[in-house]
Amino acid sequence: MNCILLFNNDFIDSDCRCVRISGRRGEHIRNVLKPNRGDTVRVGLINDKLGTGIVESLTDDCVELTVTLDTKPPQASVATLVIALCRPKSLRKSIEVASCMGVKKIYIIESWKVEKSFWGSPMISIERLLEHAYLGLEQARDCIVPSIEFRRRFKPFIEDELPQIASGMQGFVAHPYNAQPCPYCFDKPFTLAIGPEGGFTEYEIGKFRECGFDCITTGERILRVEYAIPALLGRLGA
Amino acid sequence: MNCILLFNNDFIDSDCRCVRISGRRGEHIRNVLKPNRGDTVRVGLINDKLGTGIVESLTDDCVELTVTLDTKPPQASVATLVIALCRPKSLRKSIEVASCMGVKKIYIIESWKVEKSFWGSPMISIERLLEHAYLGLEQARDCIVPSIEFRRRFKPFIEDELPQIASGMQGFVAHPYNAQPCPYCFDKPFTLAIGPEGGFTEYEIGKFRECGFDCITTGERILRVEYAIPALLGRLGA
Repeated sequence: MNCILLFNNDFIDSDCRCVRISGRRGEHIRNVLKPNRGDTVRVGLINDKLGTGIVESLTDDCVELTVTLDTKPPQASVATLVIALCRPKSLRKSIEVASCMGVKKIYIIESWKVEKSFWGSPMISIERLLEHAYLGLEQARDCIVPSIEFRRRFKPFIEDELPQIASGMQGFVAHPYNAQPCPYCFDKPFTLAIGPEGGFTEYEIGKFRECGFDCITTGERILRVEYAIPALLGRLGA
Repeated sequence: MNCILLFNNDFIDSDCRCVRISGRRGEHIRNVLKPNRGDTVRVGLINDKLGTGIVESLTDDCVELTVTLDTKPPQASVATLVIALCRPKSLRKSIEVASCMGVKKIYIIESWKVEKSFWGSPMISIERLLEHAYLGLEQARDCIVPSIEFRRRFKPFIEDELPQIASGMQGFVAHPYNAQPCPYCFDKPFTLAIGPEGGFTEYEIGKFRECGFDCITTGERILRVEYAIPALLGRLGA
């Protein structure tokens, strides 16, 4: 955790200067950062700015900080991600790394080869996934929360929504067959789609192509989605 | 698991054609691939070739295959990795993704900011890490096992060994300060060093520089090592 994320309801005064933090974040401050009273820790207010917090008090239950928010968060990624629903453990790691790399728009979609039981997992809720997005932000010293949305019907998504989402951007779909090598250092906004285990079907790929998406590949080695995201974003320079 | 890894002691005949598989791999064949007798599954013999296995028998305990090994494994990565010992959970994911991306030489080293207790973890053995390397190979459809070595003393490693290891190659050390942007599509062999949480010390960076290593960065967002590996290898095109 390279930055303590603050939420509006952490503030305990009307001036929005003092926060009281308990739980996981409080424990991290006490047990990992181990500051003394008067020391400062790095903070970031959700969807606002970064800054510092002066430790005013430390107890077993909570930590109180006086915060100054004066620094712009790092630049966001130019990537929008469209991920076919994957194994919940992979999904939460995918959300964490995408958030850490500065992605601000993530769609999690249905596709033919998505294992249908995954949709019933308790992990598959925006609230649970946001917790993993926060871990990514804390790691990256960022405070701008990505939007995460589910789309449980492929056809309405790809026909009615994707053309708007990817409007004015290049679209890429990671697909190892009939694909061109993934470009390096693509410095314009793009939408990147990553399929499920087993890949998108040819019908689905055709639908992405109709939206102007190019099929791209990094070679014959197929990465798990949580590693494909950093490998592709790293290569595209997003 | 996109390929079933075979070991020499799986063979049950003197012609090295028939294997009997139980345990995790057998369960994967039975419960995930669910073949019938006579179906084929993808196999790869450790440090040999890839091929196919015809299912001869399937019981609750084991699966017997007749194998043909006729395909070269995919090209190896041009990268040699030098990783400061990290949290064991991160280390096993790092080994898995590096192995999946085709890295064949991995050194896990001591450095100043390595948490010393990590060295005492039961995970920190070559045997345990190789299991994670195998997972990466199975995912990538590869069968050439990476070498993994520990170096518990920084100075002898960097002074006496690293110059030989990186001889004739470019060296890169991921370090966010006084660094140049990580190049894209670096198509020659290189050695890439990744520091511990908190990074290498200035002394250590100086030592890498003495070995001709360049400091590189992908920006201000610091990734966990298991994601830094695919992000950097993806960008370098390794």
